[in-house]
Amino acid sequence: MRRIRIIGIGAGNPEHLTLQAVRALNEVDVFFVPDKGEEKAALRELREEICRRYIEKPAYRMVPLRVPQRAPAGSDYRGSVDDWHAALAESYERLFAEELGEGEVGGLLVWGDPALYDSTLRIIEAVRARGFALDYDVIPGISSVQALAAAHRLVLNRIGEPVLITTGRKLAESGMPDDQGSVVVMLDGEQAFAKIPPEELDIYWGAYLGAEEEILASGPLSEVAGEIVERRAEARAAHGWIMDTYLLRRKG
Amino acid sequence: MRRIRIIGIGAGNPEHLTLQAVRALNEVDVFFVPDKGEEKAALRELREEICRRYIEKPAYRMVPLRVPQRAPAGSDYRGSVDDWHAALAESYERLFAEELGEGEVGGLLVWGDPALYDSTLRIIEAVRARGFALDYDVIPGISSVQALAAAHRLVLNRIGEPVLITTGRKLAESGMPDDQGSVVVMLDGEQAFAKIPPEELDIYWGAYLGAEEEILASGPLSEVAGEIVERRAEARAAHGWIMDTYLLRRKG
Ligand SMILES: C[S@@+](CC[C@H](N)C(=O)[O-])C[C@H]1O[C@@H](n2cnc3c(N)ncnc32)[C@H](O)[C@@H]1O
Ligand SMILES: C[S@@+](CC[C@H](N)C(=O)[O-])C[C@H]1O[C@@H](n2cnc3c(N)ncnc32)[C@H](O)[C@@H]1O
Repeated sequence: MRRIRIIGIGAGNPEHLTLQAVRALNEVDVFFVPDKGEEKAALRELREEICRRYIEKPAYRMVPLRVPQRAPAGSDYRGSVDDWHAALAESYERLFAEELGEGEVGGLLVWGDPALYDSTLRIIEAVRARGFALDYDVIPGISSVQALAAAHRLVLNRIGEPVLITTGRKLAESGMPDDQGSVVVMLDGEQAFAKIPPEELDIYWGAYLGAEEEILASGPLSEVAGEIVERRAEARAAHGWIMDTYLLRRKG
Repeated sequence: MRRIRIIGIGAGNPEHLTLQAVRALNEVDVFFVPDKGEEKAALRELREEICRRYIEKPAYRMVPLRVPQRAPAGSDYRGSVDDWHAALAESYERLFAEELGEGEVGGLLVWGDPALYDSTLRIIEAVRARGFALDYDVIPGISSVQALAAAHRLVLNRIGEPVLITTGRKLAESGMPDDQGSVVVMLDGEQAFAKIPPEELDIYWGAYLGAEEEILASGPLSEVAGEIVERRAEARAAHGWIMDTYLLRRKG
């Protein structure tokens, strides 16, 4: 039975780490470190900063994990994600078996909170489903949604009302849902906010939340959408990557 | 110009505190401590534990804040909440003026994350709207939603799909929304989960999340709803209070 700890590390600010996460980091013998296309630079930087600042344990190992390319999404998004998870589960299983000795603790660092739009938990479940004996626990982390809210000093819900967390893809497909007043959008690579009817909506947008590069913008969507598209493109060109999230709120 | 820090302290586990929150706690001169009906005991305990463990600053003050009773909700829920916020804003303003010297930093500790179903930010905005010069920042905290997901080792969203966060009141009014697969329910004092058609739903339930008293239950809603209602009633009777949250997930 191997033991793995899945540790949420926040979305860009090393001080978003919880005390529970710091304690867990210091119990890990082997970190498995995925090598992940676009987000690579930011992830690597935050990870290295966190390890440098907060791990006091003298000896721990970093084992790189080659992440297979994901098939282009095409029409069958679920299918391509499932195949990719299966390929990842195989790589993880092999690495766990090779690198993790009896009694050693493995660690996986997850950007933000592992509970939100992250595949780590599904992959670990897939490794277990393959019959590999593995015990694991999850340590929550501050997600980019919370970093967005804190930066704008927002309450996500209106009084007594719900909050929907969704993706850019969904927003592009179906627009702002009629029955929702507060919608947080993640994973929006196509600036869906600029393609929906902007009337009656305010936007609270943030990129590189929690990090030094943090940029914020907000206002009536009809007035600021164009400006956000421009600033986003400039920032992306300057840094080579971008991650952004936003809240759409119905006025009044 | 007075300065206030609004600090999310997590939902029951002192180690859910972030490093940013610990740093902020140690910069506060005066904590304003609401005295809050039902949640009082748990809140007070967590607060005291956190201050004892993590504040190294030798001198800080605790100033109690009498919270006026909220009018029973009745039909005009929004209205009664607004009146209550106005009354609170008045009390806060008076206390800030009396207790916070020039150059001193005030602190408000918020259960979970200040961005989710909490009135602190609205009250502070109301104090500012009254003309009181106040600068403030917000430090995100691990919310009960994340504590729930971590305890059950859940990803809240299904792959590429949205997550709705809503209240027990809304769920009781309109049932499980047809167009949602993952719904997190907070503030459910009436066990709305046991009053909706349970077919096709799984529930992941947690009470006292993060705390020593933590209780978890999960399974097909049709099979476990009754058991959860019972365990909830017993736990509530035993402890004198309860806070619970759950995820409803459409099967398949
Ligand atoms: C694969 S999801 C991972 C989310 C992560 N688990 C979390 O809790 O924030 C990546 C998306 O999260 C959002 N995101 C993550 N970090 C961010 C940051 N620092 N600033 C803005 N958005 C961020 C973006 O919408 C991005 O497309
Ligand atoms: C007024 S809201 C505050 C939420 C808080 N700001 C947060 O981020 O978790 C209170 C509701 O949060 C949920 N809650 C808060 N703490 C909890 C805990 N430790 N365990 C289970 N549910 C909790 C319950 O649904 C409760 O009715």
